Amino acid sequence: MIVLFTDFGADDIYVAQIKATLLRHLPQGTDIVDLFHSVSNFHIRAGAHLLAALHDQFPAGSVFLTVVDPDVGTDRDAVILHADGKWYVGPDNGLLSVVAARAVETQTWRIIWRPKMLSASFHGRDLFAPVAAWIADGALPADKLEQIGALQVRLEPGDLSEVIHVDHYGNALTGMRARHVPRSAVIAVRDHRLPYARVFAEAPASGAFWYENSVGLVELAANRASAVRLLGIEVGDPVRTIV
Amino acid sequence: MIVLFTDFGADDIYVAQIKATLLRHLPQGTDIVDLFHSVSNFHIRAGAHLLAALHDQFPAGSVFLTVVDPDVGTDRDAVILHADGKWYVGPDNGLLSVVAARAVETQTWRIIWRPKMLSASFHGRDLFAPVAAWIADGALPADKLEQIGALQVRLEPGDLSEVIHVDHYGNALTGMRARHVPRSAVIAVRDHRLPYARVFAEAPASGAFWYENSVGLVELAANRASAVRLLGIEVGDPVRTIV
Amino acid sequence: MIVLFTDFGADDIYVAQIKATLLRHLPQGTDIVDLFHSVSNFHIRAGAHLLAALHDQFPAGSVFLTVVDPDVGTDRDAVILHADGKWYVGPDNGLLSVVAARAVETQTWRIIWRPKMLSASFHGRDLFAPVAAWIADGALPADKLEQIGALQVRLEPGDLSEVIHVDHYGNALTGMRARHVPRSAVIAVRDHRLPYARVFAEAPASGAFWYENSVGLVELAANRASAVRLLGIEVGDPVRTIV
Repeated sequence: MIVLFTDFGADDIYVAQIKATLLRHLPQGTDIVDLFHSVSNFHIRAGAHLLAALHDQFPAGSVFLTVVDPDVGTDRDAVILHADGKWYVGPDNGLLSVVAARAVETQTWRIIWRPKMLSASFHGRDLFAPVAAWIADGALPADKLEQIGALQVRLEPGDLSEVIHVDHYGNALTGMRARHVPRSAVIAVRDHRLPYARVFAEAPASGAFWYENSVGLVELAANRASAVRLLGIEVGDPVRTIV
Repeated sequence: MIVLFTDFGADDIYVAQIKATLLRHLPQGTDIVDLFHSVSNFHIRAGAHLLAALHDQFPAGSVFLTVVDPDVGTDRDAVILHADGKWYVGPDNGLLSVVAARAVETQTWRIIWRPKMLSASFHGRDLFAPVAAWIADGALPADKLEQIGALQVRLEPGDLSEVIHVDHYGNALTGMRARHVPRSAVIAVRDHRLPYARVFAEAPASGAFWYENSVGLVELAANRASAVRLLGIEVGDPVRTIV
Repeated sequence: MIVLFTDFGADDIYVAQIKATLLRHLPQGTDIVDLFHSVSNFHIRAGAHLLAALHDQFPAGSVFLTVVDPDVGTDRDAVILHADGKWYVGPDNGLLSVVAARAVETQTWRIIWRPKMLSASFHGRDLFAPVAAWIADGALPADKLEQIGALQVRLEPGDLSEVIHVDHYGNALTGMRARHVPRSAVIAVRDHRLPYARVFAEAPASGAFWYENSVGLVELAANRASAVRLLGIEVGDPVRTIV
């Protein structure tokens, strides 16, 4: 299974070009799943923490093609990460570093291969997609890689006290793992203080609250309303835990 | 064929998690089709009538995974509906009740099985997706179900004189089946009165009109313009037929 | 491979209906790729030039199902185009004419077949989808076609000095092929004059610039900002090359 995680937008002209490249290289019948294409534009840190929360839903052997790559066309490296049985292909700009730091076992390779036609602005299509397809086909091409000890760009991998994604309901996902936050804690964001609720149906009739969402993160929400509009927040906004 | 009908958004982090679960359980080569992921947030009635208009396009044997589920995490039931040769899996909150009421033959089961890991907020992934996959695989698991006489929550299944969907062109679909509305009728919405036109190209040069759309519903439209902006309407707005 | 290129919206109720029709007719395992579903509503010229820039990414034998069809339901023709080894099915309204004019070898057929059930507003589902599926299945149905010398509606096929697509980053793609524009040229749009940069990372720290994008077009962009917001432009806006 190839899993796509990018900031290319689900309704734009980029994802299909990646899929065309993948389909040229993949064994027939390989599934391609669009995990998410709207990582906040160029927001590597938010993407890194979101990916670290989402990859659990995918089986061992999955190959993640991950592209949030504002420095495409510069000399940032292209890498393959193998972490606890799953594969990740993308830029070495921090995007994969939270997954790597939280994994028990990792291996890392710099991709030294370059395709004959390499667009300066679309390595997702020209470089990462063929490599992801080779891996999905079971063929890690040793002559095109250089094994390295670790990723070069490494973000702080602990809980991130920031909003990392605003979903289409208007809920705000943070980079804090809920198992590290006591249910009695209040989450502060801007001038607001949010109590805990177990499920939406147990939330206060009005006002926002926090809960443990379905991928284990602290999420700020409101019952049948947009927490984001209510609180006036966006991706990157800091949050605080008040125990 | 598995057909997804939800309010999870096409460009958000939820649909891929459902697909990952489906792919773990499905026989290889089963098609998964995204029917629609932007049912008006939490708008069960609109979703119920939209689904009733759209399912005709899909062949017998299709398994619809339907999730518009604002009360997820409460004790609302999870159900399987078999209606005129197609399968539906979702919450018993009215979403499937229009399809059921309009079908000639139905069977209904309450899902008593619960997975070991059941998120309080994402039964679409943890509960409905595995059940839909089992059905698509031809295995209705009797020990996990309890056959019941009918759905518990049943909405009025007749024509719904409301806007149920606003499409990206700015056309407004109503819940009224056009075969019940004479062509001489005028449709009234807010302060506007809309005449009939057969096709866009025969519509008045300016102003809105109604026509029978490609799934048999009365649709409010404007020629190369957004009817919704022109009329100032939204999902849930009432419409009236003036014969 | 079937490639979908429409203005139906990626998150609306239309694309899935086309896919259901395709799946009924296609040999199992045929890939269906969503190339783009947000061609500017009814903007045939922009769509024609965008398609001409994008089809290169897809292999010989691909079947493009292309629908930007504001005059559906009138007597405009439905056509099949075979151009340099790829197939295109859609309305004869100009949408396919730039691809055709730039191809070395073309063949064109008018589709005289009509399905028993033909919605007046959705030929994409009822007419074009079955025909595209037949072609993908290797069966060009001669009795349903009439070979013609050329498309009836033919747009000017040269470089188009207009914005043809605004992507979700806020970059503006023009219909000008960058290989025809010297790097020393300045691109003028509204009151702005944009210099060339090779990659985003070499662009001026503030202000917009132009570059050759990954499909060979002149694209107006800004470094980590929305060029479209900066410049106040939209699809259809004219641009000028100042050498």
